[in-house]
Amino acid sequence: MTGRRGHGEFDLIARFFEPLSRAAPGAFALGNDGALLTLPESASLVVTKDLMVAGVHYPEGEEPSMLARRLLRVNLSDLAAMGASATAYALGLALPTDVDDDWVEAFAAGLAHDQEAYGVALIGGDTVATEGPAVLSLTAFGTVEGDACLTRSGAGAGDDVYVSGTIGDAALGLRAVRGELAALEPEDRAALAERFRLPEPRLALGAALVGLATCAIDVSDGLVADLGHLCAESGVAARVAADAAPLSDPARRALAAGEADIADLVTGGDDYELLFCAPPSARGGIDALGRRLGVALTRIGAIEPGQGVTVADATGQPLSLGRAGYTHF
Amino acid sequence: MTGRRGHGEFDLIARFFEPLSRAAPGAFALGNDGALLTLPESASLVVTKDLMVAGVHYPEGEEPSMLARRLLRVNLSDLAAMGASATAYALGLALPTDVDDDWVEAFAAGLAHDQEAYGVALIGGDTVATEGPAVLSLTAFGTVEGDACLTRSGAGAGDDVYVSGTIGDAALGLRAVRGELAALEPEDRAALAERFRLPEPRLALGAALVGLATCAIDVSDGLVADLGHLCAESGVAARVAADAAPLSDPARRALAAGEADIADLVTGGDDYELLFCAPPSARGGIDALGRRLGVALTRIGAIEPGQGVTVADATGQPLSLGRAGYTHF
Repeated sequence: MTGRRGHGEFDLIARFFEPLSRAAPGAFALGNDGALLTLPESASLVVTKDLMVAGVHYPEGEEPSMLARRLLRVNLSDLAAMGASATAYALGLALPTDVDDDWVEAFAAGLAHDQEAYGVALIGGDTVATEGPAVLSLTAFGTVEGDACLTRSGAGAGDDVYVSGTIGDAALGLRAVRGELAALEPEDRAALAERFRLPEPRLALGAALVGLATCAIDVSDGLVADLGHLCAESGVAARVAADAAPLSDPARRALAAGEADIADLVTGGDDYELLFCAPPSARGGIDALGRRLGVALTRIGAIEPGQGVTVADATGQPLSLGRAGYTHF
Repeated sequence: MTGRRGHGEFDLIARFFEPLSRAAPGAFALGNDGALLTLPESASLVVTKDLMVAGVHYPEGEEPSMLARRLLRVNLSDLAAMGASATAYALGLALPTDVDDDWVEAFAAGLAHDQEAYGVALIGGDTVATEGPAVLSLTAFGTVEGDACLTRSGAGAGDDVYVSGTIGDAALGLRAVRGELAALEPEDRAALAERFRLPEPRLALGAALVGLATCAIDVSDGLVADLGHLCAESGVAARVAADAAPLSDPARRALAAGEADIADLVTGGDDYELLFCAPPSARGGIDALGRRLGVALTRIGAIEPGQGVTVADATGQPLSLGRAGYTHF
């Protein structure tokens, strides 16, 4: 790990980041040009990289330990979508010059908390100074057995479409973070904000779906947009029922209070749930898997020949989604 | 590869970056949550990550294809310092909103040129928008046989200290880029600027040094500072002779013209040459290696018990290096 923020940077790395690397001997205590990662025999590496920019992907002034945890979790979610077991990560921080030691210490504490929870270790990276907003880059590493990973491209006509957990909470949560959703109780606003700030990467689910699901993606752009990505990569269409979308109690209350409509929820991003397809013959296995993991796995529609995504309302008519739902495809 | 700069971003990825991934089937044409990297049997992965910030690590307005090539080469140089064979890279771009398609196209063209030259392929990444200066993040992947990589920590008392190529050119080159060095001929200024803008990662040398060198690092912070890193990680001291440092003809003319002194050259960064140690018994092998690769490998000093780096002048007295030489250790 190299640091070029200034004279004190080597100190920062030694004090705050080196402890995060101790579980990984190939990290060389961050005192090397790079790291060495030895994979289990017959495993392949899965790599993903997501960036976050202050003021774009999170509000300026977000608590640094929460930010660190979100950065790590968002990347682990990509590993989950590929069915990989998470092993390690590298960190690239471009930090404003007015970031102080307390900020870095809290950021590292957030990483320490979550890397323990998810069984990963820091293996290297770079810290630099920027005159602009903070840019946080993380590269996450996982493994799969052989080349058996989930991709976006295996959906076939007749497959069921499933999503884990609940949908739309994070988009509502971002609004709660911004001080909106006045019609909701404070507890609901807090619960939704937590869903935005601290997504849950579905690693156990992703790994268990290898061999069961025909394709998978994590919901970052929104349920409809990400289903569009699955369809585009698989060369198929999808039809889902809006009222089948799994909603949390706070999200239901937001609907009832007129703070959002169903189109907002099925197009809202950042839930980091897994969206996947599987043939009808797998229904029993998927139900059993959901029970075993304690994760709701909801069948919301089906794959058809053609292209594009149709979201049907309660009467079976296509729901109007506005522009947001079609941004990305 | 995901892109969140705006509505046109998926187009940008498809048009300019997807072609860079075609040699890597595990990149899934950048249409997946992550990439799959299968290593040769009994190989380990080497990972490194370096960031560059506009206005900090390169002048604002630098030609984008040169910038892309430098970003890739700087990371490949870290792989070289570990003795790894380069295989792939992931890219994280935080770009100002006023960056246009021409800029991205030229940036991708630079990557295309150098990934062909170095035999690597793009396997994924992320592009996002920033209100600040561009932040360019690259994670490079290489392999070594078993766990046989070079590190910074193997130097022992009695070892010789070597450096490849010539030293100090890039620091002079940065001054040339800034319009300084008026006492030099335009050809010299151009040659030095090229050394700053387009470093040569010493991949073949690094790989050949596995089993021959006891430690290695690439010269990014400066010869003295990076030798300090080797000494710190190895628990030894080093003594080098300033007049043994290999200098290019333009650098010699810069000295003669009073544009720089030897302390500037041995403390100047960004040369991306390899600095390494080896026991005296390896001298014949190292000379033969330099001849085979057509790379100057110059013995500049020796490792001693103790700590710290001493640079001796022609009379054997410690050279005064000013503050710059001691920034980082």
